[in-house]
Amino acid sequence: MPEFRRDRVSQRWVIIAQDRAGRPSDYVPRSARREGTSCPFCAGHEGETPAALANYPPTGPTASPTPAWQVRVIPNKYPAARREPDTTLGFSPTLPSPGMATPAGPMLPGLGDHEVIIESPAHVASFTELTAEQAAWSFMAYRDRLRVHRSRPDLAYGLVFKNCRSAGGATLEHAHSQLLSTSFVPGEIERELQSMAEFRAQQGRCLFCDLVEQETAAGERMVRQSERWAMFCPFASRFPFETWLVPRRHQLRFEDLGNDEIAELSSLVRGHLISLESLFPDAAYNFWIHTAPFAVTDDEAFHWHVEIVPRVTTQAGYEWGSGCFVNPLSPEKAAQELRRIDWPWRNG
Amino acid sequence: MPEFRRDRVSQRWVIIAQDRAGRPSDYVPRSARREGTSCPFCAGHEGETPAALANYPPTGPTASPTPAWQVRVIPNKYPAARREPDTTLGFSPTLPSPGMATPAGPMLPGLGDHEVIIESPAHVASFTELTAEQAAWSFMAYRDRLRVHRSRPDLAYGLVFKNCRSAGGATLEHAHSQLLSTSFVPGEIERELQSMAEFRAQQGRCLFCDLVEQETAAGERMVRQSERWAMFCPFASRFPFETWLVPRRHQLRFEDLGNDEIAELSSLVRGHLISLESLFPDAAYNFWIHTAPFAVTDDEAFHWHVEIVPRVTTQAGYEWGSGCFVNPLSPEKAAQELRRIDWPWRNG
Repeated sequence: MPEFRRDRVSQRWVIIAQDRAGRPSDYVPRSARREGTSCPFCAGHEGETPAALANYPPTGPTASPTPAWQVRVIPNKYPAARREPDTTLGFSPTLPSPGMATPAGPMLPGLGDHEVIIESPAHVASFTELTAEQAAWSFMAYRDRLRVHRSRPDLAYGLVFKNCRSAGGATLEHAHSQLLSTSFVPGEIERELQSMAEFRAQQGRCLFCDLVEQETAAGERMVRQSERWAMFCPFASRFPFETWLVPRRHQLRFEDLGNDEIAELSSLVRGHLISLESLFPDAAYNFWIHTAPFAVTDDEAFHWHVEIVPRVTTQAGYEWGSGCFVNPLSPEKAAQELRRIDWPWRNG
Repeated sequence: MPEFRRDRVSQRWVIIAQDRAGRPSDYVPRSARREGTSCPFCAGHEGETPAALANYPPTGPTASPTPAWQVRVIPNKYPAARREPDTTLGFSPTLPSPGMATPAGPMLPGLGDHEVIIESPAHVASFTELTAEQAAWSFMAYRDRLRVHRSRPDLAYGLVFKNCRSAGGATLEHAHSQLLSTSFVPGEIERELQSMAEFRAQQGRCLFCDLVEQETAAGERMVRQSERWAMFCPFASRFPFETWLVPRRHQLRFEDLGNDEIAELSSLVRGHLISLESLFPDAAYNFWIHTAPFAVTDDEAFHWHVEIVPRVTTQAGYEWGSGCFVNPLSPEKAAQELRRIDWPWRNG
């Protein structure tokens, strides 16, 4: 059973997911598995994974040899959070959990859920290799699964994230994303909530709405924009080519999007990743969705967005030790490079 | 000229060190350079680096062919912070700097200092390959340079950190550490200060003194201990085998250590890294020293310590997106593994 522990000094949450590994040698970095025919995420291998929680399009048998599914959601076989409480611990399975104030620090049972979104029946590695429809089904799956998790009283937050290629942390090559929901709200989200609340208390409006306006006016960090969306390299980018995709409309939750917006959004993310891969062929990358915590209500300040980062630099002692990042490329220059790239797929 | 920028949402500082690189292709990861005879950090190549700021032992000419130095401190040729203000920006070179509240976010000129501590005249890669004397001279250099930086009114914080091997972020293979001092206090240190201040307000004592007592009593996460030192895997370890080395005596600043304590400390760090390398030959690793910010006074709450992490896992979308870590090995199990290892060097 995983455990959630909070560091008394940094106030950082960590997930100790002990039963995911055995001996020390299990932590030696491995490349993403490259198998084709033996990949458990490929169509025809549905029997090697847990049963599907959802299929897209939402019809057809799960294990058909010619798969009816384009995108498939399954429970993570090695979850960092578990659905069932370990009753031997004596914890309450519902929030608010009392946790346990051990002498060494606060601790919670590792309750939550951890799902995998398989984004193509074919063995492709990158989100850019999906069809436009598969990309849209993927974002629809993120949305629908977040909605399911939000309805559960034991969950506080769900993070959708994508690890592509081994330097991006993918342990299986086949294109997939993950949804990891926990009974606590992670630190990055807590800090965003706090900044947004403070800004609204002072300025009477949403920090992200202000940010989008400022970036639109400045223009120098803008990568693409449309009536509905702003995609820019943030002023304090941690990584070269870090990009945020923000809806212009003030909206708390990603999972409140309708199908039309989902199609546009997935197309923008896919197009942006094609741009990145034109600069860095076979680049490892990550993206994640910051949506409001499940318990946040309409009168609170939040504004969902997507953060996309190629993994082209190594984070080292200074970054881990200080929490501050050294970025060798200004976001102004990164945005300039990205604006130069054509998006042929738009007309394709 | 580097710039320090603060993200309005996460409140995170980043250093935009733009002139460290040119075109996008410059960000493609490279392996640590492995040259022997052409390494600028090797004895005999002193002319290829900026002039030394200090040599250890502190005698002998800087560029002697048979070097008098065992450890050598030089300015970083590609600094992430600069000593001289760029007067064209119109910023004040002294603290408190007004910064600049740009519409996109707070910004400071990139003032500070960035030095490299070369830890051996011979071409070795790891701190474990140093002699006991070189290891002690290295820690003495960290201490002495921190003292120099602390005396400067334009600096707020100095982080000593070590990147070993390319997965650890080293761009040159030759064993070295760095001291990066900035005109701001980084986020990790701010959070530690705040936790320590809150704990003292509530409990009337130092959080780290309490932590060391609790870990000593519990024992299960303790790796090594002596009268002066406690070395343990923290309760909420982010990484497998993450280890903290904490002085039992309440002390704000690492740089207040005397020579005897420095010798003991460097020997403990070296011994611990030998342990790690016995589990993971040629492991990449980082360590860094958390000392009190320069302006902290004796009546404030801080307690210096060293944090040591082997780089055996990949941080991915969940870690970057949430600020929360998934650690596949419990610190109790990590400590147990580490306690099993003999320290033959102690008698060597």
